[in-house]
Amino acid sequence: MTINLTERQQRIIEIVKDNDPITSKEIAKQLNLSRGALRSDLSVLTMANILEAKPRVGYFYSRDNSYLRDFDELYGQKIKEIKSAAVVVKEEASVYDTIVTLFLKDIGSLFIIDQQESLIGVVSRKDLLKITIGEGDIKKMPVSVIMTRMPNIITVKDEDTILEAAKLIVKYKIDSLPVVKIEEGSAESGQQLYKVIGRVTKTNIARVFVDFGLKI
Amino acid sequence: MTINLTERQQRIIEIVKDNDPITSKEIAKQLNLSRGALRSDLSVLTMANILEAKPRVGYFYSRDNSYLRDFDELYGQKIKEIKSAAVVVKEEASVYDTIVTLFLKDIGSLFIIDQQESLIGVVSRKDLLKITIGEGDIKKMPVSVIMTRMPNIITVKDEDTILEAAKLIVKYKIDSLPVVKIEEGSAESGQQLYKVIGRVTKTNIARVFVDFGLKI
Repeated sequence: MTINLTERQQRIIEIVKDNDPITSKEIAKQLNLSRGALRSDLSVLTMANILEAKPRVGYFYSRDNSYLRDFDELYGQKIKEIKSAAVVVKEEASVYDTIVTLFLKDIGSLFIIDQQESLIGVVSRKDLLKITIGEGDIKKMPVSVIMTRMPNIITVKDEDTILEAAKLIVKYKIDSLPVVKIEEGSAESGQQLYKVIGRVTKTNIARVFVDFGLKI
Repeated sequence: MTINLTERQQRIIEIVKDNDPITSKEIAKQLNLSRGALRSDLSVLTMANILEAKPRVGYFYSRDNSYLRDFDELYGQKIKEIKSAAVVVKEEASVYDTIVTLFLKDIGSLFIIDQQESLIGVVSRKDLLKITIGEGDIKKMPVSVIMTRMPNIITVKDEDTILEAAKLIVKYKIDSLPVVKIEEGSAESGQQLYKVIGRVTKTNIARVFVDFGLKI
């Protein structure tokens, strides 16, 4: 349920947010208005649960309340809530075996990992289709030859929002973003490992979009 | 700016929507309430510009106003506003030529048309990848052999909303929906022709999602 607040109502919200508890007299002073002129604004903001009025104390901003909650519910969803399971293949896998895995799992992109199970590449249907119409023997060719490699891979983390992931997908024209968790490797190597803990695709975004659209 | 309306406030909106202009007395009667009990609800709905009060006439529903406008701006967008150009190939095209077209145009799915330029099939990267790892000669095989055929194709129209398209994409796990315009064929054939006038993909949905998310 969306309403258009007036500029003055928005100013009042800001003032209360920064100063609560605050009396209507003090709000009126900050706005150079009479208390009477404020009355209807304070009344609508209170009824809309944006402000709370406590007798003899003043107005509070309802922090746990739901104005603006709806859009946040849509765009603020965390990756960990909406991600899908990732499918990984070892770097030695052949292009052919990678394609077979892709069909078995019925997904659009696969992530390639090294011996330490750290993400080193991504391969998409498009990459695979391109190589299959070439001359090479895809049963002998390792997938690492055709994959997109780190550091050219865009990744996201569990705590990122769906809006952040969607921005990356649109901006870089990506089908599937790996969700990673960075871990410290062995002391000798001193390297960071990118553990793949999921994937986010345009399908996830479409699903979130639809689920929310049907709810409202 | 979002508020939570109570159930009673929502009932009042429905009553006014269906009966306006309507006096507070009549609203109260429909709800089995006293006019006094309604006063604060009518006041918040009026201040939120959901209802309009005209002296000596009654309450009107503000049809041109903006409560719910925001979500409608997101989900109510028409296909014609957000669609991409479609790429079509003739049914005689070989699988190989179809793949080349796919790469030249850098898209994920192609639509197949017959002599009358009516939609008869859809082919995706997935369909093409599956056939390329088989034994057939993709330079000799026509694309019509592997395409998904009418009437198994889900289509949308220019006037459908993005929410409707997204629902179909999610429900049927489709990459790309053809946007069609139905025309009457020749008098002899008596057939309807499905002219392809665009496509809607998960990319379009992701783009709408992001553009709106950055605006709010």
